[in-house]
Amino acid sequence: MGTAGSFGLRPIGVIRSNIRVRSQAPKQGAEGAPDCWLEVRSRVARALEGLAVGDHILVLTWLHRAKRDVLQVHPRSDPKRPLTGVFATRSPDRPNPIGVHRVTIRRMVRNRLRIGPIEAIDGTPVIDLKPVLSISEE
Amino acid sequence: MGTAGSFGLRPIGVIRSNIRVRSQAPKQGAEGAPDCWLEVRSRVARALEGLAVGDHILVLTWLHRAKRDVLQVHPRSDPKRPLTGVFATRSPDRPNPIGVHRVTIRRMVRNRLRIGPIEAIDGTPVIDLKPVLSISEE
Repeated sequence: MGTAGSFGLRPIGVIRSNIRVRSQAPKQGAEGAPDCWLEVRSRVARALEGLAVGDHILVLTWLHRAKRDVLQVHPRSDPKRPLTGVFATRSPDRPNPIGVHRVTIRRMVRNRLRIGPIEAIDGTPVIDLKPVLSISEE
Repeated sequence: MGTAGSFGLRPIGVIRSNIRVRSQAPKQGAEGAPDCWLEVRSRVARALEGLAVGDHILVLTWLHRAKRDVLQVHPRSDPKRPLTGVFATRSPDRPNPIGVHRVTIRRMVRNRLRIGPIEAIDGTPVIDLKPVLSISEE
């Protein structure tokens, strides 16, 4: 816990991807995004126990290149679309820029997971992993 | 952004629920959880523009009663189940205790949203809202 009114996240891993900058990234994983490596910090590697190749998981990321003071955007960066609140969009720019990515585990090599498809850029901090409960989650 | 190696979350709202303590909370929203009120802070209310009654959204919460030093648990608190890494479970106890809840918007009254079903306890900080991406994923 951080000080009053704020909570401190501690990265549990990092994305290693061929996508280097935001302008290269698809807007969603299902739009042609590649696989990537997720390197989990060794101090939390025990928390991976029970995950297996083929599992569908949610990867929560900290979108470290995002702007946190943006409250409305033109969806999909299309100026013809009306300004919309960021809570009604998946814009990375938002007060707490957390990405939720539904991916499949392709390979596991100790604390490194090959996952995809995922649109996150290289160096993106990872803050949590969760199993998908049902098909209704992304 | 916080200091190196940590990121500061700022709550964008709070859960007002009849569930007062963890022991009263269903383990998942689909397991008989009630509806609740989500009070969004007025300074970010513009970010709600575009959301409507009937929408399916992901609510991200900060599970403020969770333990952050837990890496393995017995799933569903059942001691007969083998110890499992928290990244392979939906345990609230985990390094970054973020909850992901899929809910339906029942009512909207300015910056207050009636949502459910949701197992989060009263007073839980809310850190983000996102639309569910497409009906094919529901």
